[in-house]
Amino acid sequence: MSPEDFPGPANALCEVCRLFADREWCLATSGNFSVRAGKLHCMITQSGKDKSRLSPDDLMICDLHGIAVDQSLKPSTETPLHACIYKLDADIGAVLHTHSVSATVLSRAAGPELTISGYEMQKAFAGIGSHDESVNVVIFDNDQDMQALSARIEQAWTGGQLTVPGFLIRGHGLYAWGEKLGDAQRHVEGFEFLFQCAWQELMVKT
Amino acid sequence: MSPEDFPGPANALCEVCRLFADREWCLATSGNFSVRAGKLHCMITQSGKDKSRLSPDDLMICDLHGIAVDQSLKPSTETPLHACIYKLDADIGAVLHTHSVSATVLSRAAGPELTISGYEMQKAFAGIGSHDESVNVVIFDNDQDMQALSARIEQAWTGGQLTVPGFLIRGHGLYAWGEKLGDAQRHVEGFEFLFQCAWQELMVKT
Amino acid sequence: MSPEDFPGPANALCEVCRLFADREWCLATSGNFSVRAGKLHCMITQSGKDKSRLSPDDLMICDLHGIAVDQSLKPSTETPLHACIYKLDADIGAVLHTHSVSATVLSRAAGPELTISGYEMQKAFAGIGSHDESVNVVIFDNDQDMQALSARIEQAWTGGQLTVPGFLIRGHGLYAWGEKLGDAQRHVEGFEFLFQCAWQELMVKT
Amino acid sequence: MSPEDFPGPANALCEVCRLFADREWCLATSGNFSVRAGKLHCMITQSGKDKSRLSPDDLMICDLHGIAVDQSLKPSTETPLHACIYKLDADIGAVLHTHSVSATVLSRAAGPELTISGYEMQKAFAGIGSHDESVNVVIFDNDQDMQALSARIEQAWTGGQLTVPGFLIRGHGLYAWGEKLGDAQRHVEGFEFLFQCAWQELMVKT
Repeated sequence: MSPEDFPGPANALCEVCRLFADREWCLATSGNFSVRAGKLHCMITQSGKDKSRLSPDDLMICDLHGIAVDQSLKPSTETPLHACIYKLDADIGAVLHTHSVSATVLSRAAGPELTISGYEMQKAFAGIGSHDESVNVVIFDNDQDMQALSARIEQAWTGGQLTVPGFLIRGHGLYAWGEKLGDAQRHVEGFEFLFQCAWQELMVKT
Repeated sequence: MSPEDFPGPANALCEVCRLFADREWCLATSGNFSVRAGKLHCMITQSGKDKSRLSPDDLMICDLHGIAVDQSLKPSTETPLHACIYKLDADIGAVLHTHSVSATVLSRAAGPELTISGYEMQKAFAGIGSHDESVNVVIFDNDQDMQALSARIEQAWTGGQLTVPGFLIRGHGLYAWGEKLGDAQRHVEGFEFLFQCAWQELMVKT
Repeated sequence: MSPEDFPGPANALCEVCRLFADREWCLATSGNFSVRAGKLHCMITQSGKDKSRLSPDDLMICDLHGIAVDQSLKPSTETPLHACIYKLDADIGAVLHTHSVSATVLSRAAGPELTISGYEMQKAFAGIGSHDESVNVVIFDNDQDMQALSARIEQAWTGGQLTVPGFLIRGHGLYAWGEKLGDAQRHVEGFEFLFQCAWQELMVKT
Repeated sequence: MSPEDFPGPANALCEVCRLFADREWCLATSGNFSVRAGKLHCMITQSGKDKSRLSPDDLMICDLHGIAVDQSLKPSTETPLHACIYKLDADIGAVLHTHSVSATVLSRAAGPELTISGYEMQKAFAGIGSHDESVNVVIFDNDQDMQALSARIEQAWTGGQLTVPGFLIRGHGLYAWGEKLGDAQRHVEGFEFLFQCAWQELMVKT
């Protein structure tokens, strides 16, 4: 089982990665990106790859414990977070983690969650139908211990705190997901747009 | 009647969409874009399409009530606003709606209208001949009810308040138009430039 | 005499225009760009062309009074400023006018000139050898009367006030020049960089 | 000995230069970029080349005193800084100098060093394993005397002050290095990201 078994999804995932890299949302080999591959695996970016020129050769297959099928390849250290998210909901088909300046500075300035309202862009998120609704984005403190971070994510999911398809990790970036890759891409773009707005409004308010 | 009947305008419209997407003016499948197609129809972007890779297959034909000719395709929910604008003036040949960070944050910070003067860029708008003139951009409050929003636009047009070829919707973005697609493109770029300037000047004044 | 007589310079000029357009320095068909063509003429962008897809067909030849050789083509209304600059110094081979957000907002915030020092980038300008030198950029008030504006430019040149290869027009943008197109391009990029820095420092100081 | 002897590294170096130019990190022919070529030489960008369209013809070979092998070519005036860095550590295989707005304005606003902590992006630097560590970036005052500047760099290296693979020169930009070109690229991108964050946070704090 290898990326060659999923040529369409592999190419589509790489295209999204290159697009995000072009927007400087995953500089310095940051960010990691995956799609579900069958019921028990995901196809994810290998560790340390330059996303601006990503090709299917830079992907690999891991199971939902984050373990590589081909042990000669090195998955991203954050693969357990992807695995954690796929296990939350069988309908999640893609998990995208960007690492933008806006997400970084905004998450460092904010408290335990970010509340957003009055933006048409909120409708980018599955289930949000109006700019009048209030959207809460949970911000987890950063942690190098992926199991500890996964446990906190799972707890927030179970507790019903993850009301939009994504969350922030403080000083680190955004995780967003969707049923299909296109949904996850739309969610990432919606979040990144809203983070840019929220940060710019903070600059004027200060 | 389908986009295939208008190959030149379809390709030109898609090229403008991809250019605007590259500038991050229509992230997360936001924005919608149309050109007039005959006297009684327009050709418009379908709902939920990624503008960064738009092709003529992602367009469709609607009448000026916003009703799809091919009922199997889903037009943008904002198609009625395009239809409303085409009905205001038979000389309008293109309507472009961008959804940029600058337009969003500026419209949220401003009152019922934005007054701009002293910028050479004002001359990008048809009918404005000098930087000395004062330009008023109307800002409508956002609304999920397209008929209600259309009625307010029509009222402002009839009342002579729309003195430049575009308006803002608060927290939502810009609608601009022109006789030809190139005119509408120039108007969008002029507005977006002026919104960037006005927002940056607000950051220094604060 | 037409752009076809100068295929190399025409292509090189268009390449620079497209590069600057990509950086959003000439949105909404703003900006105009020329190279000297023989002793008595220049080759300049036609009025109203989208610089992001400029080709040699969008150029034309004018004499140094700003008069078109081919009267069926419409030169930029600012052609007299290009002609004025070419007449100041026979060694000037290219004149580039950009219309960026940074140049616009900075020139509106500044007084009659902008003083810059301590930047390594100052060395981009012909004749400046150290970051320790102090660079003065003259800012002319904007004017729709090209002859009046030309007269002020000529006076500033004669009075020795134009000590760097460019000046600002308030709320309008940058004019820069050089012996060769590459020199003028380097000067534009140096100025635009310094305007971005100066504006950002103004945002922190405020 | 010429760039033609190292076609793979020459193409890879040019690709990185064009990528950085696209991000406006080396406008106005600023920035200079090299890879080690054998034990006693490096391959470096020639003086005054536009990095946005760099090709192997724009590179040249210098020894580690900064002297050109082909005396008909003009190396960057900052070649001695590259040579200085290669002599500090035989494991350094690439030296990249960018000249961004963020690095410029931040280095002008800061004191003798910049302290960064709490950012996941710090892990982009070889040897940094957690966002909890505190990273110090040394800022040297700018100098047109390359020998004097080299001496200060060497002193800081010997004194153990260069704890991350890069430093800033005030009002001038970033020098970063790595074992391989990809490492140096990752370090540049990590630094530039962190400078953008630090500058944006300064705008909110002010």
